[in-house]
Amino acid sequence: ADVKKIAVIAGDGIGPEVVGEALKVLKKTEELYGYQFETTHGLFGGIAIDEKGTPLPQETLDICKAADAVLLGAVGGPKWDNNSKELRPETGLLGIRKALGLFSNIRPANVFDCLKEASTLKPEVLEGTDLIVVRELTGGIYFGEKFRRQGAHGEEAVDTCVYNVVEVERIVRQGFEIARTRRKKLASVDKANVLETSRLWREVVNRIAPEYPDVELEHVLVDNCAMQLLRRPSSFDVIVTENMFGDIISDEAAMLTGSIGMLSSASLGEGAFGLYEPVHGSAPDIAGQGISNPIATILSVALMFRLTFGYHEAAQAIEDAVKSVLDAGHRTGDIAVDKSKAIGTTEMGDLIVAAI
Amino acid sequence: ADVKKIAVIAGDGIGPEVVGEALKVLKKTEELYGYQFETTHGLFGGIAIDEKGTPLPQETLDICKAADAVLLGAVGGPKWDNNSKELRPETGLLGIRKALGLFSNIRPANVFDCLKEASTLKPEVLEGTDLIVVRELTGGIYFGEKFRRQGAHGEEAVDTCVYNVVEVERIVRQGFEIARTRRKKLASVDKANVLETSRLWREVVNRIAPEYPDVELEHVLVDNCAMQLLRRPSSFDVIVTENMFGDIISDEAAMLTGSIGMLSSASLGEGAFGLYEPVHGSAPDIAGQGISNPIATILSVALMFRLTFGYHEAAQAIEDAVKSVLDAGHRTGDIAVDKSKAIGTTEMGDLIVAAI
Ligand SMILES: CC(C)[C@H](C(=O)O)[C@@H](O)C(=O)O
Ligand SMILES: CC(C)[C@H](C(=O)O)[C@@H](O)C(=O)O
Repeated sequence: ADVKKIAVIAGDGIGPEVVGEALKVLKKTEELYGYQFETTHGLFGGIAIDEKGTPLPQETLDICKAADAVLLGAVGGPKWDNNSKELRPETGLLGIRKALGLFSNIRPANVFDCLKEASTLKPEVLEGTDLIVVRELTGGIYFGEKFRRQGAHGEEAVDTCVYNVVEVERIVRQGFEIARTRRKKLASVDKANVLETSRLWREVVNRIAPEYPDVELEHVLVDNCAMQLLRRPSSFDVIVTENMFGDIISDEAAMLTGSIGMLSSASLGEGAFGLYEPVHGSAPDIAGQGISNPIATILSVALMFRLTFGYHEAAQAIEDAVKSVLDAGHRTGDIAVDKSKAIGTTEMGDLIVAAI
Repeated sequence: ADVKKIAVIAGDGIGPEVVGEALKVLKKTEELYGYQFETTHGLFGGIAIDEKGTPLPQETLDICKAADAVLLGAVGGPKWDNNSKELRPETGLLGIRKALGLFSNIRPANVFDCLKEASTLKPEVLEGTDLIVVRELTGGIYFGEKFRRQGAHGEEAVDTCVYNVVEVERIVRQGFEIARTRRKKLASVDKANVLETSRLWREVVNRIAPEYPDVELEHVLVDNCAMQLLRRPSSFDVIVTENMFGDIISDEAAMLTGSIGMLSSASLGEGAFGLYEPVHGSAPDIAGQGISNPIATILSVALMFRLTFGYHEAAQAIEDAVKSVLDAGHRTGDIAVDKSKAIGTTEMGDLIVAAI
């Protein structure tokens, strides 16, 4: 049989809890659809710093490389916030992206009808909002040379933002390809009136655009994009942008949907391999209380099914199950209007598993 | 008598129209308060490209340098968008900031009660929102070395982000000082988990903070800031950040107030000299029709009175006049609910002048 290998990295804070529920979902689909998953667990982030002295142990990287996909919970927490750079969870995150060649971060931001009220935006503005931010993930100022030096005015710090045409082209193509499967609109976000990397970015976009005559392209300056997301969120379909801008814009987009506890993401490289994780963080303040919301992680499994395994039917079944449980009124504390009626992490997981 | 010299740079698009109304306000305050203003006009932006072959003619720079303050309308438009870098209006904007040493951009984002409905945010979320973004304006990736080169994967572009301790310290101090005059809360926005310049930034903030024990300091990562602005806008008082992050965050903040047509900004250096301009752009699509909203430019005069001239009474009178005209229901097209009742640029200017 076709055994799929999944590297499971629970991480820190609520990571282990929410991943636990996602694993139940995996198991249920094995029973229902005859899939076979082989899961291997790896240490990553803060817990790996504590137990192995590094946020990304070689062993964890090996487990990921041997797998078809990675399921990640969340990493980080105040305990490690003041560590030196090498001993911080984020360094592991940047390391794993680079080591696995995950140059493309796919962040859907859509509105769950039953959660529309959770947004701080007016419902009529939000209506129909369903966008995907495609963020370049292994280049730009995140990975360019960084250093300190003595200058004429004392100490100075330097970050370098570098992009080559190959890096830009592959992510921009992905943006066009994804737009093609959706509403056929692509917004390319840059700061071409100031940055050289953005001018290169825009040149590449304009060079490639004629190959996608069916996709309507617009160039949006990043500052304007931050505004337009607020003014007309539903007019965006796919947004493609570089690493730093994508970090900011994707978080803004996620928050405006009001569904931040529900959103999943995929980080992809060449081929079908991908790393899947919820958009929310490790929420150390509520970790271990059994009250965290496992839906984003469960939906990350659905995304994994679609993008890495091609298990579309099961992906749909998971997404439908989530919807039906929400429609039935079940809520974890983060999304409950009446907090006294909130259910716990495992209860939510069980309900979704039962509904699949 | 104490004659104040004001360099007036109308610029492109609606710039000349809105500046025209602001000049009427200046004149009215001369009559009422006995002030004396000497205005000198300079070409800048697209119009300077057309007439002088450069967005920032030396003559204009000289006029600004000889003045106590600069009043700027707006620059740019599609006509110049595809020009080479040296012949673009934005290049003039960056040039004037650098040449005049305007390292600090002050961008208030507050809600006009009568315009609360114009925001896409829910009124109850917006309630009480009144923040100022203090953006570093002459450093960072905007002004670092930029170039193209051939790399292993073809052409590549490079931008360099540089900050020294002096640059960070002076803007951070300004943030603390402004916070001190307000609700005494400062949010310092960086990306210290990734960028070396942000780590330097945070070090400087933490070193200076003990000098301002009365100001409550929080460090916010830029991606999180983009989210928190949406979730809890009224909890921010002063936000201080570097150039690129400030560009994005200040526009997001402006848009969420729903008052983008009403917001003014100041760009300051050492001493009292300042450049004042509306936050909105040159709006080429409505230029010349006499329908643009002059309020942001008129409020820029009030800001000039406060920050450069210390004319607080007149500043207050201008702000009160704007408020009373709005409270009386007068609206230009951009802020009118019933567009058929909208008044024109000069009508709005006249009403405000009469109300001072
Ligand atoms: C933790 C941090 C390094 C990371 C990033 O900036 O990429 C996070 O914000 C994200 O978006 O995944
Ligand atoms: C036009 C552009 C160069 C400028 C900037 O990015 O600083 C503008 O967006 C602004 O915020 O004043």
